[in-house]
Amino acid sequence: MNRNELFELIKKKESFLCVGLDTDIHKIPRHLLDTEDPVFEFNKQIIDATRQYTIAYKPNTAFYESRGAEGWRSLEKTIEYLKKFEKELFIIADAKRGDIGNTSKQYANAFFKHMDVDAITVAPYMGEDSVTPFLDYPGKWVILLALTSNIGAYDFQFLQPQFSAMMEKMGIRTKRPKPKKLFEQVLTTSYQWGANEDNMMFVVGATKAEMLAGIRQIVPNHFLLVPGVGAQGGSLEEVAEFGMNNQCGIIVNSSRGIIYASNEDDFAEKAAEKAQEIQIKMKNLLKQKGL
Amino acid sequence: MNRNELFELIKKKESFLCVGLDTDIHKIPRHLLDTEDPVFEFNKQIIDATRQYTIAYKPNTAFYESRGAEGWRSLEKTIEYLKKFEKELFIIADAKRGDIGNTSKQYANAFFKHMDVDAITVAPYMGEDSVTPFLDYPGKWVILLALTSNIGAYDFQFLQPQFSAMMEKMGIRTKRPKPKKLFEQVLTTSYQWGANEDNMMFVVGATKAEMLAGIRQIVPNHFLLVPGVGAQGGSLEEVAEFGMNNQCGIIVNSSRGIIYASNEDDFAEKAAEKAQEIQIKMKNLLKQKGL
Repeated sequence: MNRNELFELIKKKESFLCVGLDTDIHKIPRHLLDTEDPVFEFNKQIIDATRQYTIAYKPNTAFYESRGAEGWRSLEKTIEYLKKFEKELFIIADAKRGDIGNTSKQYANAFFKHMDVDAITVAPYMGEDSVTPFLDYPGKWVILLALTSNIGAYDFQFLQPQFSAMMEKMGIRTKRPKPKKLFEQVLTTSYQWGANEDNMMFVVGATKAEMLAGIRQIVPNHFLLVPGVGAQGGSLEEVAEFGMNNQCGIIVNSSRGIIYASNEDDFAEKAAEKAQEIQIKMKNLLKQKGL
Repeated sequence: MNRNELFELIKKKESFLCVGLDTDIHKIPRHLLDTEDPVFEFNKQIIDATRQYTIAYKPNTAFYESRGAEGWRSLEKTIEYLKKFEKELFIIADAKRGDIGNTSKQYANAFFKHMDVDAITVAPYMGEDSVTPFLDYPGKWVILLALTSNIGAYDFQFLQPQFSAMMEKMGIRTKRPKPKKLFEQVLTTSYQWGANEDNMMFVVGATKAEMLAGIRQIVPNHFLLVPGVGAQGGSLEEVAEFGMNNQCGIIVNSSRGIIYASNEDDFAEKAAEKAQEIQIKMKNLLKQKGL
């Protein structure tokens, strides 16, 4: 799915919601445990109930790997099922992979050939050759971690030249270009790798929504994948205010808040209610922006 | 396996060699393709032929995931097989995982509970709560990426406050503590997470062996996992010279140079020859160090 198709989908569904399929077998309704593949059965029912309100699904590989090959099979079945609705859904493997070139190539194979998802999240620490193998697939997307939604984001992602930070604090301007924080460096450096707004998105956590305005100055046209709304406390309105561009430009993810809205027989129904609730808000936010 | 047991193993086997099981189904000898699980069969024969010369094996998950659930099953069978030799082998899942806390917990489950390996490689970009869930398993190890062996390492891992770098170049000393490069920050920050030399190791690429002396000043007692010897061009002698401490302190990995030494019927035999060749060098290096 290319950028324009994604934007058309957003307009058609009046939604920029992604549902995170972080499906933990210990948290799903008990009555599903009698089925052949409870995790897949849960996902299927969640997808059926929510897909009119969403443009994307994002299974996180960790929740499947924790059950080994069997879990990996549930993941594959979930992706196969999502692919039945190919034209109306964008599929993201939230895998946060990244390794030396010949190894990243294998990961790209795993997710873009074997599973054939639309996008994969990738960690930037190992730099260019850990990312570029994922860019060799036309129509596929790398979603690079920039500013994550967790507390640990403050450990390294904000690292900045100390002297410059001090000068900035003191209001002293220098002629040298303003040095960047690590996450800003990630945003700009990726341009030099042949990545652009047609094959790369960035993860920017909703818990840091106030930083979206600055990020938009650096990457005005890129789509941003925004996790952290809901269970992690980020605000949808702020994300839209600071993050939207004229092609919407944001995909907002909610996982636990939707899929675990209830763990009784009515789990799918309740998930649909939650998803619809968010979709209505998104519809209004798109309208306010004239999209 | 704890730090002392690992050191005892190194002394007993007179080796600090790790064999990387980056098993690509397209690169293994053709005659194996008729077996039920060619990748496992290849690994089993490589392990049987080389294990007297090695202290560790390191399957890289990418090579298994590229074949989906079936590949994941080959990985599980490989780990199960390695665990038969539990007391004499250290098993590393080279997975380079890392995500928000509740998700890293699932990865920790996958590798430390479900697979029960000794160690997993983890990417540091997302900081503390992405790493600490792996530290909750006594006797298990996090191997955190610090300075990787690939060219992309130069994109972010060397980022350093510019002003300080300039001062340093000009020979000007300041009273403020010397600011650190990103990989140095990774080495020191992890101490604050409750990690220490008994539950954490670091990846330091052999292609940057000359930097090992500086790294040893920061983490004198940690074990370092050193990839990049062989196909990637790193030198074993330099790694030993700059990286060894009084408990050896280094595990040197070789993947392609050993497992693909031949792709004929004699592949296991040739792999053993290569492994033995390295082990003999290691024996001498340990001797020189008086270990």
